Amino acid sequence: MSQLPPADPGFRQRLHDSFARQAVMQTLGARLEVADAGRVVIVMAHKPALTQQHGFLHAGIVSTALDSACGYAAFTLMPADAAVLTIEFKVNLLAPARGPLFRIEGFVIKAGRTISVAEGKAWQHEVGGAETLCATMTATLMTVQGRGLTH
Amino acid sequence: MSQLPPADPGFRQRLHDSFARQAVMQTLGARLEVADAGRVVIVMAHKPALTQQHGFLHAGIVSTALDSACGYAAFTLMPADAAVLTIEFKVNLLAPARGPLFRIEGFVIKAGRTISVAEGKAWQHEVGGAETLCATMTATLMTVQGRGLTH
Amino acid sequence: MSQLPPADPGFRQRLHDSFARQAVMQTLGARLEVADAGRVVIVMAHKPALTQQHGFLHAGIVSTALDSACGYAAFTLMPADAAVLTIEFKVNLLAPARGPLFRIEGFVIKAGRTISVAEGKAWQHEVGGAETLCATMTATLMTVQGRGLTH
Amino acid sequence: MSQLPPADPGFRQRLHDSFARQAVMQTLGARLEVADAGRVVIVMAHKPALTQQHGFLHAGIVSTALDSACGYAAFTLMPADAAVLTIEFKVNLLAPARGPLFRIEGFVIKAGRTISVAEGKAWQHEVGGAETLCATMTATLMTVQGRGLTH
Repeated sequence: MSQLPPADPGFRQRLHDSFARQAVMQTLGARLEVADAGRVVIVMAHKPALTQQHGFLHAGIVSTALDSACGYAAFTLMPADAAVLTIEFKVNLLAPARGPLFRIEGFVIKAGRTISVAEGKAWQHEVGGAETLCATMTATLMTVQGRGLTH
Repeated sequence: MSQLPPADPGFRQRLHDSFARQAVMQTLGARLEVADAGRVVIVMAHKPALTQQHGFLHAGIVSTALDSACGYAAFTLMPADAAVLTIEFKVNLLAPARGPLFRIEGFVIKAGRTISVAEGKAWQHEVGGAETLCATMTATLMTVQGRGLTH
Repeated sequence: MSQLPPADPGFRQRLHDSFARQAVMQTLGARLEVADAGRVVIVMAHKPALTQQHGFLHAGIVSTALDSACGYAAFTLMPADAAVLTIEFKVNLLAPARGPLFRIEGFVIKAGRTISVAEGKAWQHEVGGAETLCATMTATLMTVQGRGLTH
Repeated sequence: MSQLPPADPGFRQRLHDSFARQAVMQTLGARLEVADAGRVVIVMAHKPALTQQHGFLHAGIVSTALDSACGYAAFTLMPADAAVLTIEFKVNLLAPARGPLFRIEGFVIKAGRTISVAEGKAWQHEVGGAETLCATMTATLMTVQGRGLTH
């Protein structure tokens, strides 16, 4: 990833501000744990209010955290006046999302002027300490400038 | 879609039971509006607690409703003792999810013995009545039998 | 699709010129059959030189035709000086691509200034006349201007 | 990937036999370079007969090699009497496929009894030696037994 552009120096503050405005992250109980240039980690716990019919975290909720991780990973490499929009993503569900804890990582594999691509991995920490990959995402993000969108 | 298999006669009741156990649907304020063989419609409203940083419904939340619509559309055509699991999905975001109302439709394009494929469309009803396509999904679902999963 | 932009009057000629320069279309034996605003149809036949290990058309070859159909469908709605680039696509394989004839359709579901989204369907015409949907695509396309790319 | 199942001892021979029957690989000029348990590498060169309108390798051709790499990576971990079928894949195009040489790698991230998931990376070796990631794939594969399909 040596060709990734340098990040704007103020990216961490902008990222934390934007994350704090994602109300859905509070609903998920999700917390921003790592905010590096090109890489973001979100952590969250299993919550009964977010489950599907078998008691696992709903695939869409795992995707919500993955999309924020991927989108913000791309955001760290964007200009200071840019907002990030998700164009599309694809998710593979590899294991039932039992939890109890989840670590969701997004990292940039291409940072373009207009289009960026990030990959996400959702790991669950099972009781006893085993870590399992429960979902993957590939997301395509767009750098948006001059449309009146805040970060 | 003439080659779709006949649905088990009790599919509507099983679908309603299963939907009622998806706790996340209550969190979203989502309601099952149509449950036909091979086609399911879910309706929901914009909620501040489910938004991203610009005030739109988070793409992952739209995906949550789309995944349930697609998964349950496939479920309507499965045997009476089967559970449905999502293997993967892909979502394109076409317009900011402003709402205020959303109609999310899932319909089966292939119902196989093991693998089914469904497509989803998320429409938003804007103030004044215009209806806009705000997201699409293609989902791959698996028929699961004999693994101790309830519907 | 009432909100699709009007096509540049010369789009058919530009499309035919561009298609003729896609050397891979000759290798596939693919022919441009329909070139309407927002919709393109390509036809081709099963060829032994394009098969996978079971004698079916390789999924990547079906994807090649689908990508051209989707890309060119988007291209029909772009400005006269624009080139089209595929950002990403997703393909579901629904039935073995036996042929002997294939009709591959791409149609635009969103035509944006920078980003367009098209859906593709690959139908096969089996001996006896039955038509089967053998693959679907969702593709994200980009309008490229001022980078020195011809159509 | 410590949880991947042990490969059947004869997997390399089966893989080479199957690859040799993929006629499209000859059309592409593609060669099987690495065949390890859970990981396959294919190499190929840019060919004018496989290009799109700007002279780059067509995205569908890159996808053809990626799909074979991903599918065969999954195949290495399947039982001796199994065939592999691609259910779906998603491709992101990161850079124009100029070549002149391509190294396409597929590796398994989940090997299930019925469903496996593999990721692919297409690298191009530019003149002067730089290596660029030009495309990625996530593919979902199915283990097929008892349907009369050879490898």
